[in-house]
Amino acid sequence: MARINVEEIDTIIHGRLRLGIMAYLADAEAADFTELKQALEATQGNLSANLITLEQAGYIAIDKSFIGRKPLTRARITPAGRDAFRRYLGHMAKLVEGLKLV
Amino acid sequence: MARINVEEIDTIIHGRLRLGIMAYLADAEAADFTELKQALEATQGNLSANLITLEQAGYIAIDKSFIGRKPLTRARITPAGRDAFRRYLGHMAKLVEGLKLV
Repeated sequence: MARINVEEIDTIIHGRLRLGIMAYLADAEAADFTELKQALEATQGNLSANLITLEQAGYIAIDKSFIGRKPLTRARITPAGRDAFRRYLGHMAKLVEGLKLV
Repeated sequence: MARINVEEIDTIIHGRLRLGIMAYLADAEAADFTELKQALEATQGNLSANLITLEQAGYIAIDKSFIGRKPLTRARITPAGRDAFRRYLGHMAKLVEGLKLV
């Protein structure tokens, strides 16, 4: 099988919950905190922490607003995030290519 | 894209270095410690720790022997490890299928 250089795997995206967030946002473009929390079955704290990691990497942007007095947190994927996710999927595709030989 | 359930991703295999070890052993069947260390550009301690995690999960078996007075550590993938790796690659394949829509 094609050996992958694991050093090339983007650890920011590779983390399991962050991978779920990126996959979700790559599809949906943007999502509310509550929507992500339900879709990924994540706890409040774990989701928050991982969103911050992705925001700091520039892979997502987080918009905070209010609906009436209720705070609304919305995350959307950035062009840099989309590029990074595409690269990540490319590395995983190389790995999967080896599937038939395993 | 097909949304993946990240909970299904086997964290034992998902760890970046462990993923490299499993991919290497799925191909090579077995490898010496030194060979793995060089191929994966890992430190002694990090490689050891991750081999132990995989051994404890039953995904690899570790044989220790001596060549003269020199200790030889050899890791090989187990049938359970091969099954788990195949399942892991299946989940990643589902993720990669979404590539064209990203």
